[in-house]
Amino acid sequence: MNAGCVFCDIVAGRSPSSFAYEDGRVVAFMDINPVTPGHLMVVPREHAAGLADLDEELGAHVFVVAMRMAAALRESSVRCEGINLFLADGEVAFQDVFHVHLHVLPRFEGDSFRIDADWSVHPKRAELEAVAAELRSAYERLPLGK
Amino acid sequence: MNAGCVFCDIVAGRSPSSFAYEDGRVVAFMDINPVTPGHLMVVPREHAAGLADLDEELGAHVFVVAMRMAAALRESSVRCEGINLFLADGEVAFQDVFHVHLHVLPRFEGDSFRIDADWSVHPKRAELEAVAAELRSAYERLPLGK
Repeated sequence: MNAGCVFCDIVAGRSPSSFAYEDGRVVAFMDINPVTPGHLMVVPREHAAGLADLDEELGAHVFVVAMRMAAALRESSVRCEGINLFLADGEVAFQDVFHVHLHVLPRFEGDSFRIDADWSVHPKRAELEAVAAELRSAYERLPLGK
Repeated sequence: MNAGCVFCDIVAGRSPSSFAYEDGRVVAFMDINPVTPGHLMVVPREHAAGLADLDEELGAHVFVVAMRMAAALRESSVRCEGINLFLADGEVAFQDVFHVHLHVLPRFEGDSFRIDADWSVHPKRAELEAVAAELRSAYERLPLGK
């Protein structure tokens, strides 16, 4: 638990929220400023600021619960013709609350959600290979299995 | 394996691609039309069109590998000040290749990636509670533990 963390306050029941799901390790609650009705977030109970602080097994469970909430949205009467999962890790990546959360966004024809980027760059295969090699090498340096 | 699936062709080595990671269950390869340099996707070897077709344990592994690729990006010389994870499930949610894939996007100050939505709607607590209750009920109807 982290003093001053708004998601820790929600997890602990100190702040109002609307839970769509909870178990011993994660909660899923409705976004108070939803992109579409039904927009929710899956949040580990244990405080972790970012992906690098999140236990892998707990991360795996967050994702499984997101899969189930996606299924629940499709099963429900909420308008849902598709789903986006979105996670922002770091301020530059649009993270607003520094307690890891995975957004589950129901989507439908004509909703307001958009993504945009400059997709005009088509790297040569040699450039992609160089980045892939750099990442394989960086992966080998990770302190996995701590 | 699904005939005509471009990601099944990559997994099987029939199409060129640049692998940043592979194991017995998933591969991670560079997006050929990256939002930023280092943009990759984590893809289960076994064909699954969408989230609903994806085995939960395999989904959990996809996410753990995405966490590790995020760590590898931060460890590497690739410019990476933040990370987005993004998954598109369904055409209306911007899915383009119908073989489940989780995008791992390195982000940096001044990059071109943007998300947009009409965030002007602030539902009343009673509305959020009603959707949450509907989702809790839908969750109970899911055929989990098949």
